[in-house]
Amino acid sequence: MSMDEITLENLDAGEFIEEQCSAIAERVAGGLAINALSGGVDSSVVTMLGHRAIGSRLMTYFVDNGIMRRDEPAQVASMFEKLGVPIEIVDAREQFFSALKGLTDPEEKREAITQTFYRDIFGDLVRASGARYLLQGTILTDVEETVAGVKRQHNILSQLGIDTREQFGYTLIEPLIRLRKPGVRKVGEALGLPGELFARPPFPGPALAARVIGETTPDRIDLVREATAIVEEELVDIKAFQYLAILHEDKVTGIRDGKRDYGHQIEIRCWDSTDAKTARPTRLDYALLEKLASRITTEVKGVVSVTYNIASKPTSTIEAV
Amino acid sequence: MSMDEITLENLDAGEFIEEQCSAIAERVAGGLAINALSGGVDSSVVTMLGHRAIGSRLMTYFVDNGIMRRDEPAQVASMFEKLGVPIEIVDAREQFFSALKGLTDPEEKREAITQTFYRDIFGDLVRASGARYLLQGTILTDVEETVAGVKRQHNILSQLGIDTREQFGYTLIEPLIRLRKPGVRKVGEALGLPGELFARPPFPGPALAARVIGETTPDRIDLVREATAIVEEELVDIKAFQYLAILHEDKVTGIRDGKRDYGHQIEIRCWDSTDAKTARPTRLDYALLEKLASRITTEVKGVVSVTYNIASKPTSTIEAV
Repeated sequence: MSMDEITLENLDAGEFIEEQCSAIAERVAGGLAINALSGGVDSSVVTMLGHRAIGSRLMTYFVDNGIMRRDEPAQVASMFEKLGVPIEIVDAREQFFSALKGLTDPEEKREAITQTFYRDIFGDLVRASGARYLLQGTILTDVEETVAGVKRQHNILSQLGIDTREQFGYTLIEPLIRLRKPGVRKVGEALGLPGELFARPPFPGPALAARVIGETTPDRIDLVREATAIVEEELVDIKAFQYLAILHEDKVTGIRDGKRDYGHQIEIRCWDSTDAKTARPTRLDYALLEKLASRITTEVKGVVSVTYNIASKPTSTIEAV
Repeated sequence: MSMDEITLENLDAGEFIEEQCSAIAERVAGGLAINALSGGVDSSVVTMLGHRAIGSRLMTYFVDNGIMRRDEPAQVASMFEKLGVPIEIVDAREQFFSALKGLTDPEEKREAITQTFYRDIFGDLVRASGARYLLQGTILTDVEETVAGVKRQHNILSQLGIDTREQFGYTLIEPLIRLRKPGVRKVGEALGLPGELFARPPFPGPALAARVIGETTPDRIDLVREATAIVEEELVDIKAFQYLAILHEDKVTGIRDGKRDYGHQIEIRCWDSTDAKTARPTRLDYALLEKLASRITTEVKGVVSVTYNIASKPTSTIEAV
């Protein structure tokens, strides 16, 4: 397969879909394929392409890791149900929280999530399924970042615990590898994916675990999930590049009902950026900031303090963990 | 002594100074008195009154606890030198840092500072001095807050380790007890205290230890001291009620010279308030916020992230610790 970029200008979405569906059907032939749906744009587009190409011979798994945004598993399931695409939801919440228990270092948290997903959950599903074809939503930017050393190499088979020297016959299919994000969105729209999928801000791989400083526990994820829902609701119309809520591990002195309340702090970040390489805090109206602070300290249990990030990237990064 | 309030309108500063000096001279008679100067307005005014009343029979100690703002000990010493008032500086930095070592709970930190000051440092000075008179800058608001249970009771003699039942003869003199803050300032100006004393924002008893979340170490105090100097410098003209910098214990991911830099976060707070009972974040211009963030991430070693408080009191408090 050629790795030449298909630019947005040169992309005929209908033609692309037809070509990729033929290619998938041809390679899988009469066999079985499998893919993991995260609810993001890339994996949603791959899921649609795969099902259009080979129907029920593609098994799509949605792994509920317990660290997703509010209603995310239900929304994804309902979205694909409406599109007539069967999705199997795997409840892996306990396995992820157990893997994250006691970890506070950001790199260790990321590694635990990656290992739990690839080796323990999806790896088992692949081996149990009998499928020899894996559909993966790798895009051109992922490849470039791997080459540049920014991201970990996408050696998906070894991540799944599949030793290709011993276990021949696994084939990785990456239909989006010549596209960048805007091209993927265009294809997604042509495939009939609903607007709500594109409306939510980008979400990192480690999900809400990237939004919790310190240990990732079910209680702490619940707190940041509620704060995230408020921030996404209030900032959706701002059209910022990215916006998010972070739960700090530090506790600060507060006061509630006239009494001292040593409580939590939520940090809000909202970014202006074109490419995520550099970014500046969006100059949000103070009325909106004050509404956010008031809603979060009122609606999210135990939160007494809210801050807004005012540092640029660099020296900050978009996410805190 | 009558505890009736002297309102600002009824206060004749010249007359007040004359009365208080006579009263101090009369009570101390030919004896020795002692007082602790913190560098704040109240204790500065008491120092001036005492020296005017009894001259060198008042011994004034300035305890350098290591957790003061940049240049504070030197500024205070130089200010009183210019006024012709002798001050003895006591270097107690090691004792305070040793008492604070390992403490992360805000209440325990406050208690360690109080105990170290009253029992270990100033208590020893009082006993060694042979003085039987203590001058103290208690104001009417302190008394009211003690009665209301907001502040710890001002039982200065027992805090100093002086058991009044066994050690008779100690006399506490509180010349400012019928005034509130604006009255104290008026008297201070009449006593010739310079404008710089009144220009700095209020500073809490536990000093920079109140501005560090987590353990108070010399290195962490250095960081928050530098950030505080920048915040005070940039916000002095805003005329806000209070403004401050807080060093968080949480570390966040940053990027410097193209490399990942897991670094510190500074939180800035700036308050609009009339009485500190309720307060709102000042709506600072974004250009100013961005300048603060840029200066702090550039000038303060290891800081990669800066936030601005957007929550009101309540549920927040003015200080974080």
